[in-house]
Amino acid sequence: MNIKDKTVSDSKTIMTEMIMPNDTNPLGNLMGGNLMRWMDIAAGVCAAKHAEAHVVTAAVDHVSFDLPIKLGNVITITAQITRAFNSSMEVYVEVQVAEITGANPRKSNHAYFSFVALNESNLKPTKVHKISPQNKIEWDRYNAATRRRELRLVLSGRLKPEEAKEIKEIFSN
Amino acid sequence: MNIKDKTVSDSKTIMTEMIMPNDTNPLGNLMGGNLMRWMDIAAGVCAAKHAEAHVVTAAVDHVSFDLPIKLGNVITITAQITRAFNSSMEVYVEVQVAEITGANPRKSNHAYFSFVALNESNLKPTKVHKISPQNKIEWDRYNAATRRRELRLVLSGRLKPEEAKEIKEIFSN
Amino acid sequence: MNIKDKTVSDSKTIMTEMIMPNDTNPLGNLMGGNLMRWMDIAAGVCAAKHAEAHVVTAAVDHVSFDLPIKLGNVITITAQITRAFNSSMEVYVEVQVAEITGANPRKSNHAYFSFVALNESNLKPTKVHKISPQNKIEWDRYNAATRRRELRLVLSGRLKPEEAKEIKEIFSN
Amino acid sequence: MNIKDKTVSDSKTIMTEMIMPNDTNPLGNLMGGNLMRWMDIAAGVCAAKHAEAHVVTAAVDHVSFDLPIKLGNVITITAQITRAFNSSMEVYVEVQVAEITGANPRKSNHAYFSFVALNESNLKPTKVHKISPQNKIEWDRYNAATRRRELRLVLSGRLKPEEAKEIKEIFSN
Amino acid sequence: MNIKDKTVSDSKTIMTEMIMPNDTNPLGNLMGGNLMRWMDIAAGVCAAKHAEAHVVTAAVDHVSFDLPIKLGNVITITAQITRAFNSSMEVYVEVQVAEITGANPRKSNHAYFSFVALNESNLKPTKVHKISPQNKIEWDRYNAATRRRELRLVLSGRLKPEEAKEIKEIFSN
Amino acid sequence: MNIKDKTVSDSKTIMTEMIMPNDTNPLGNLMGGNLMRWMDIAAGVCAAKHAEAHVVTAAVDHVSFDLPIKLGNVITITAQITRAFNSSMEVYVEVQVAEITGANPRKSNHAYFSFVALNESNLKPTKVHKISPQNKIEWDRYNAATRRRELRLVLSGRLKPEEAKEIKEIFSN
Repeated sequence: MNIKDKTVSDSKTIMTEMIMPNDTNPLGNLMGGNLMRWMDIAAGVCAAKHAEAHVVTAAVDHVSFDLPIKLGNVITITAQITRAFNSSMEVYVEVQVAEITGANPRKSNHAYFSFVALNESNLKPTKVHKISPQNKIEWDRYNAATRRRELRLVLSGRLKPEEAKEIKEIFSN
Repeated sequence: MNIKDKTVSDSKTIMTEMIMPNDTNPLGNLMGGNLMRWMDIAAGVCAAKHAEAHVVTAAVDHVSFDLPIKLGNVITITAQITRAFNSSMEVYVEVQVAEITGANPRKSNHAYFSFVALNESNLKPTKVHKISPQNKIEWDRYNAATRRRELRLVLSGRLKPEEAKEIKEIFSN
Repeated sequence: MNIKDKTVSDSKTIMTEMIMPNDTNPLGNLMGGNLMRWMDIAAGVCAAKHAEAHVVTAAVDHVSFDLPIKLGNVITITAQITRAFNSSMEVYVEVQVAEITGANPRKSNHAYFSFVALNESNLKPTKVHKISPQNKIEWDRYNAATRRRELRLVLSGRLKPEEAKEIKEIFSN
Repeated sequence: MNIKDKTVSDSKTIMTEMIMPNDTNPLGNLMGGNLMRWMDIAAGVCAAKHAEAHVVTAAVDHVSFDLPIKLGNVITITAQITRAFNSSMEVYVEVQVAEITGANPRKSNHAYFSFVALNESNLKPTKVHKISPQNKIEWDRYNAATRRRELRLVLSGRLKPEEAKEIKEIFSN
Repeated sequence: MNIKDKTVSDSKTIMTEMIMPNDTNPLGNLMGGNLMRWMDIAAGVCAAKHAEAHVVTAAVDHVSFDLPIKLGNVITITAQITRAFNSSMEVYVEVQVAEITGANPRKSNHAYFSFVALNESNLKPTKVHKISPQNKIEWDRYNAATRRRELRLVLSGRLKPEEAKEIKEIFSN
Repeated sequence: MNIKDKTVSDSKTIMTEMIMPNDTNPLGNLMGGNLMRWMDIAAGVCAAKHAEAHVVTAAVDHVSFDLPIKLGNVITITAQITRAFNSSMEVYVEVQVAEITGANPRKSNHAYFSFVALNESNLKPTKVHKISPQNKIEWDRYNAATRRRELRLVLSGRLKPEEAKEIKEIFSN
């Protein structure tokens, strides 16, 4: 495989789902875990398309659930690569929600997922294409990806807090 | 509700799904009925958004299944209104399929679904927005919609074949 | 395999399902796509039993959804071969619906599905048994099968309208 | 409601299911609990139709699982009322299994389920129709129902073993 | 494998489930078959852990459903080996139910399941560890297991009633 | 409701699940989103029991997926309250995984979920019981909860990094 740069839109993935009864809790709200399950699938399809390889979820960053999503609502999940590292990719996932009639559209959630690309024959990590951002939003997400990655390494115990340079800077003011 | 014209892209709906084991038959192929179930949901979300109302499926036209879709494949379903009548709408649904890696993308199927918009308070049919086509493809689908509607009425026994003017013309050469 | 004639009742298949919450839309009606999914399974089991082979769905003809089916209703799907061609079969599927208490039984829908029988070793189409109709209804469906097949070929672009002899006759009065 | 006698065939219920991947254990065999879930639905539909009322499962008698049912097999579940008591009914459920091709058909299991009919307004038990057996098999199941009922009462602690007259007779030889 | 004795708590398995809409009948009660499906999974996981082998369900004894379990309730299923025979094990499964808030906790059901351990290479029955009871309740279940096993053999037609010594004793007073 | 202190074990919740085909990706690994869906249910049942009220997921902290979980594996999810604030609770969720035979048991993941308790009548946040830790592990999780909460507030944009005192301390060495 020729490892050339690819754009964010090359692998942008959109998933629409209607909230069914079994997706909701006894109050009639979409359960957070069901939303994360769909976000993971959308993000995984996006990452596999970018990597042109099978992928596995490596991590999910902090997710907030601020607004209730109700039975019968329609959600639109958009997944986009923010940045590719050696064999891993960060995917930005945003959830829009609206009534079934399209009324009251609003952003519901977002989260950053990390995936690792695997070589199908030996299931070892495999190199992925770099991302070439095309506009300011894509460049902003691209640039901030290293900071989020640092936090991820700290939170999973792979980096000592005192070695997390970018994060230290934020908290050191 | 102000019944103004709307465009096709106002309600265009995209749904991405990964083919899971339970979606397939013992040969590992996506079962036709499962694909139709997803197409119906995507088309229904599209129709409800156009109508700004609840909708119910009224009919599905002929669907062919020519190429097998395999376990682990990713499908992208795109639903677009072709034409709105009084309280009903025709939706064009197209299915693209590719490997999970994005390889081998191809068109798999298409079908025309019809939906009726319902007034939520009395569940009676309610008037819907007209469609204003914006390009040649949209105009072509818009113009051919009356012919498909005629065939639908004949096939459901609501129109006598001899009164189906547009279809008679096609078969009378 | 000895390719002898078989009767319709040799492979007649009956499927009973209760409409569960996740099968319905926000209005509490069975979604059309879910009904088609069940019809496809019942028809596929019927076709496989007739062919004594694995089968794949080749096409579904026009389906109308005229009466709402509600949460808690019970449906009975009956699938019967109408006619077998070389390696393909047409299956007539009829849906009866009633309250859970058996009250208000009525015909809800019907549709014609087409299946192709596959040889399990090479997944190529394989010859199937002929149908030997046993009564007037079976003969009527058998005789009309060639006309529906012609329409199917026209609708899938494999036959020119002007070559569809049986259909031309219907529309030429 | 007029409580007249009804026949077994008035409410006989047939359910066909294909064994899907999620129905099986890691060895590829249908899990016993999934089969019981389907048997319960078929029996419940049968009982509700006989009672012309909502029903709830009261008990399931001993079930043996002697032959493995494999992924891709097709099962046919037949549920028939054996006998109606005051507000309860006993349902005989038999499972036939075959390859998807119809090959190797055989009886897989049977079980007796008990249901209680409920009045929809107050959810209290309500009187059900008596059964009028029409042939020897139906009479045999009808006559043996009191013995099975006695065993059920003993096993659920509602009858002392020494008061179970019919069962005592069997074990007293 | 070294066949040493194991304790009940070595393989005790706890499963918590929340009752979702699709688990209930039109009255909003958990369907008996769904409960049995979960009990079978919990019991199977318990038996496989005790046997350190794959297992298949051999039988389920009489189950009563006395109290309705409602949508949104939480059930806790506890599965424990009572006694191991040569290659089979009896598992006691108890179901506790409570409101989602933990209010109104109560025992809902219990049942005895039997499993057979299979050798993974040839799928033949394989020897399992013996159980070493540790307290009075475990000893009581252990001792009564032979009587239940006798009844199971009679009910599945493998033992003549007149040869069922332990059961005869109970009914012979 | 009398708001007294409760212990961690009062609401500890254990959920056992077997990995089924539909839970896995095309490589046969449990998809991360499915695991998060189960973790959310276990955590929600735990939080509702502690609060004696309905709850909704407010946030999920960083989750890593380091070891693949395979088809047929058995997971045991344990959810425990770490600390209760005014109307919110933090829940520690730990996932253990093993072969179906019980072999190779190991810790797979952990995550911290936050829930808000709602008053059922007006769906507004309602006060919850405090936690009274009983041992060193419970005290450690209790004490670290304020730091995680600070990070959560920073990540969701509700607290400025420079006001996050506990976190600043960690990164300021």
